[in-house]
Amino acid sequence: MTDTGVEPAWRWPEDQWRAAVNTVRAGRSLRPKKWKGGARLAVALAFELDHETLELARGGTSPSGFALGQYGARQGVPRLLRILRKHAVPATFFVPAVSALLHPDESRALVSAGHEIGLHSWCHEGLEGMDQEAERNLIAGARHALEKLAGVAPVGYRAASADFSAHTLSILRDLGILYDASFAADDDPYELLGAGEASGIVEVPCHPVRNDATHFGGASPLSPDAVFEIYRRELEATYDEGGLFAPTFHPHLVGPRSRIWIVDELLKIARTLPGVWFATHTDVALWAKAKGG
Amino acid sequence: MTDTGVEPAWRWPEDQWRAAVNTVRAGRSLRPKKWKGGARLAVALAFELDHETLELARGGTSPSGFALGQYGARQGVPRLLRILRKHAVPATFFVPAVSALLHPDESRALVSAGHEIGLHSWCHEGLEGMDQEAERNLIAGARHALEKLAGVAPVGYRAASADFSAHTLSILRDLGILYDASFAADDDPYELLGAGEASGIVEVPCHPVRNDATHFGGASPLSPDAVFEIYRRELEATYDEGGLFAPTFHPHLVGPRSRIWIVDELLKIARTLPGVWFATHTDVALWAKAKGG
Amino acid sequence: MTDTGVEPAWRWPEDQWRAAVNTVRAGRSLRPKKWKGGARLAVALAFELDHETLELARGGTSPSGFALGQYGARQGVPRLLRILRKHAVPATFFVPAVSALLHPDESRALVSAGHEIGLHSWCHEGLEGMDQEAERNLIAGARHALEKLAGVAPVGYRAASADFSAHTLSILRDLGILYDASFAADDDPYELLGAGEASGIVEVPCHPVRNDATHFGGASPLSPDAVFEIYRRELEATYDEGGLFAPTFHPHLVGPRSRIWIVDELLKIARTLPGVWFATHTDVALWAKAKGG
Amino acid sequence: MTDTGVEPAWRWPEDQWRAAVNTVRAGRSLRPKKWKGGARLAVALAFELDHETLELARGGTSPSGFALGQYGARQGVPRLLRILRKHAVPATFFVPAVSALLHPDESRALVSAGHEIGLHSWCHEGLEGMDQEAERNLIAGARHALEKLAGVAPVGYRAASADFSAHTLSILRDLGILYDASFAADDDPYELLGAGEASGIVEVPCHPVRNDATHFGGASPLSPDAVFEIYRRELEATYDEGGLFAPTFHPHLVGPRSRIWIVDELLKIARTLPGVWFATHTDVALWAKAKGG
Repeated sequence: MTDTGVEPAWRWPEDQWRAAVNTVRAGRSLRPKKWKGGARLAVALAFELDHETLELARGGTSPSGFALGQYGARQGVPRLLRILRKHAVPATFFVPAVSALLHPDESRALVSAGHEIGLHSWCHEGLEGMDQEAERNLIAGARHALEKLAGVAPVGYRAASADFSAHTLSILRDLGILYDASFAADDDPYELLGAGEASGIVEVPCHPVRNDATHFGGASPLSPDAVFEIYRRELEATYDEGGLFAPTFHPHLVGPRSRIWIVDELLKIARTLPGVWFATHTDVALWAKAKGG
Repeated sequence: MTDTGVEPAWRWPEDQWRAAVNTVRAGRSLRPKKWKGGARLAVALAFELDHETLELARGGTSPSGFALGQYGARQGVPRLLRILRKHAVPATFFVPAVSALLHPDESRALVSAGHEIGLHSWCHEGLEGMDQEAERNLIAGARHALEKLAGVAPVGYRAASADFSAHTLSILRDLGILYDASFAADDDPYELLGAGEASGIVEVPCHPVRNDATHFGGASPLSPDAVFEIYRRELEATYDEGGLFAPTFHPHLVGPRSRIWIVDELLKIARTLPGVWFATHTDVALWAKAKGG
Repeated sequence: MTDTGVEPAWRWPEDQWRAAVNTVRAGRSLRPKKWKGGARLAVALAFELDHETLELARGGTSPSGFALGQYGARQGVPRLLRILRKHAVPATFFVPAVSALLHPDESRALVSAGHEIGLHSWCHEGLEGMDQEAERNLIAGARHALEKLAGVAPVGYRAASADFSAHTLSILRDLGILYDASFAADDDPYELLGAGEASGIVEVPCHPVRNDATHFGGASPLSPDAVFEIYRRELEATYDEGGLFAPTFHPHLVGPRSRIWIVDELLKIARTLPGVWFATHTDVALWAKAKGG
Repeated sequence: MTDTGVEPAWRWPEDQWRAAVNTVRAGRSLRPKKWKGGARLAVALAFELDHETLELARGGTSPSGFALGQYGARQGVPRLLRILRKHAVPATFFVPAVSALLHPDESRALVSAGHEIGLHSWCHEGLEGMDQEAERNLIAGARHALEKLAGVAPVGYRAASADFSAHTLSILRDLGILYDASFAADDDPYELLGAGEASGIVEVPCHPVRNDATHFGGASPLSPDAVFEIYRRELEATYDEGGLFAPTFHPHLVGPRSRIWIVDELLKIARTLPGVWFATHTDVALWAKAKGG
């Protein structure tokens, strides 16, 4: 075997595994001493509005799969918006273009409520094996579609498959993207390196432990009480350390009545703590870029 | 690739993914302002009496698989009927025709206790790739068998695979079915659309979060205490919001002595709340059709 | 497709699915009004001493797999024997012949402590697709080996794969077996039917909900506290109803120090209840055969 | 079938399954009456610093996979070192050579803080099917690389795949390795046998129940509270019995803020108990070799 995709790295020469590791990598920390207004904790919520695109991305046409996705749009998002409004907290919504085209009123409602919309693929496509031109066209098309719907061009990106191709970083730079939110190399912001060089792009990390898909998305979902405890511990320990609490939720997963209280309760706790800054991912990225490190 | 079954939708033209999403879809909400008698909460329990058909549906002849199914009939259903009688609560039992033919006394006992029997396939067949004539014959045969056993023709349907084929909706309309209970696009009733057109069929939703197969049916079943907390939260949050609490249980899963108390305890809680209407799925569908939206 | 192993049963004629379901099936209940001495609850513990045979049965030679099995023999069984002695409780150990041959002192220690040894395959072989002569030779060989080691011929059987072949029942009858403990069609004892005919063999059921392999044996083992709650609920609800509490444990699964207390604590609870009969599976089968139904 | 790799052992002659079981096996117990200083409990923490090698070992080049590994190095290890320093507890770090080469400052920091570094493969390679020369070169190369970085040659070994090939034991003996920490045949130290003969190598066992990969590494991670309870029970029961408490953690798994407290809290409990010896794996192996059995 010589294909790096299948040959285990103990057979590779050193420069090959070093190059692989360095393709896209965490660089210097951009964690600031203080967040805006002197806050010790930044809270930046992320929601992925995948809706029907999860079914579509696997080439599926299952009415049952679509219905689960539609649940996110019919019940999940409205419940989340009510909670955000109640606590007066801004958030970032990563939206595949096809989700936005299927639910145009939703995107407009998010923007008019003061939330941020970020790029999240055209139709939840994975990038593995995709050629550069196709990937560039899909991201550019998605940005165009979101800008048209929301009236403002997105400046943040989260890969739908939680992974980059070999081309993604340079495409994002060409598009002038401010930040990415796909990786888990740290809890706090850092600069992305491409082939060992500073990319200028801020990473606002997205760790599986703070992603509800880890806990609710598999074959054996955890109980909501257990999941709440995980997020509560993340929130409180981040407050103690000072840092960024950036959890990710999916409206079709956290949306049910037995789970939606988790988001409400977390914000209730965060609202009682002194010195907390509630921000979008763009706010965090700009602050980290200016004051971090 | 051009087969829509395997090509991911980011390669599809827009009209193709729009058509796929619209094949069977949630239409206008049929959630009423109040339930019958001014109730704020409707409780409509669903039980799926799969029994030996889960093993048969995979073409299996395992005595161990049949025994697990038979457990549902020998211990699960009698325990459930005792609990329903104790709390004087009606319920809907979705019964594959082969289950009913293997356990004819069971179907008669359900009807004589005032419960509803709904369609749930001939022998738990999945519908994917089935031709229209075969599917129509199986559903029609199942309806005939249940009517003969129970003395009344079922008017409700739940797909055994929790999914429709491209033909299911029109078959259900031809059969004069009142409601379907297969989809998860909402918590409360809505109207099913077929290719974007109102179908006249009420959807009484069945969400995985309220289905015991999600929590007990996989390789790592949750503890009964954790599962109870999920249902208790669903019940109480639905009471707070006003709406429909329609959980699904399987007698072979919830039947064991360490789990059966979950159903008992939920009904005990619901019985203490003022303004609760205990109804079959047919009751709910008729009320939603008349007063919902 | 015409092979009954792969064609789903919705294509089968009625006599075919009826015959499949009736091959081995639960017959009349043998639950007695009272257990020996007027007890309301019978407690009959089962342990499966698979040891190295799980690795061998898959044709494996992994030292790591063998070590996990050996853990059952080195730590699991001695801890279990200490707990059984402390509470003066007899139990049934289902032992593959190869386990017994690899650990001959263990079998002798079990017998000298007053416990029962039951058949559990030659080397944890599954029976699917095995021809009748091979299966008969393996079971007869296993009985011979256990009798030689333990000084008494086993009269009980648990299939290693938790399943019968089409020949197993008649082989067990030819061998004069008193009871089987492989199936989950009930919580309490019943008579096994073969092709619809009473077999004379008592079934002492083995339900997955009371098998520690369900909770500890998969990729995501439950916490010991959650598992204890499941068994405690089974025990207490069986006491309330009157019946048989027959849990199954594997020494390599329940043996670790963080889990072994579950067995101790269950027996402590059972010892405090009035009217409990602690019995081997043979004791239960004989009583059920004489007084049940 | 005649290949022992695939033919189930019920078809093997007795000498074949006996030889397979005896290839590498637990021999006499080396559990001492007392640990150093008369302690009843030895606490020996193990950490596996897999970092980017998990992704590399599967021949992968996923930036997302590398980021998860890098998280272990950026956040996991520093947090663990702070906790170890706070409680003044030594530990053993099993480090694949490629991890050490990618993070050379980390290895030096571990050594300068007084911790032990053990062998853990070249690049997390599994050993199944590897020829003897390749395996010998990889282990020897890894030892050389670690010695060069850390200034001291490692004397302990943990297989990356938690398993030995048919050659591993003799390679370890040729290299003069003191102890292995790959197997789960016991909770307390024992001597490894090779083909039934004493090898002189001490086994410091590594049981899945004390490995955070079992609880956090799969598709459905447990809640941190449940995982803590497992370790707390292991620790306290080992203290009661007297013995070795040797848990294994991975910095990328236990590193997040919602989980890292588990290690802190365990050490806090252990620090309050009288008669506890905190030791590296080498300390334990030397004591067991001298005083055990």
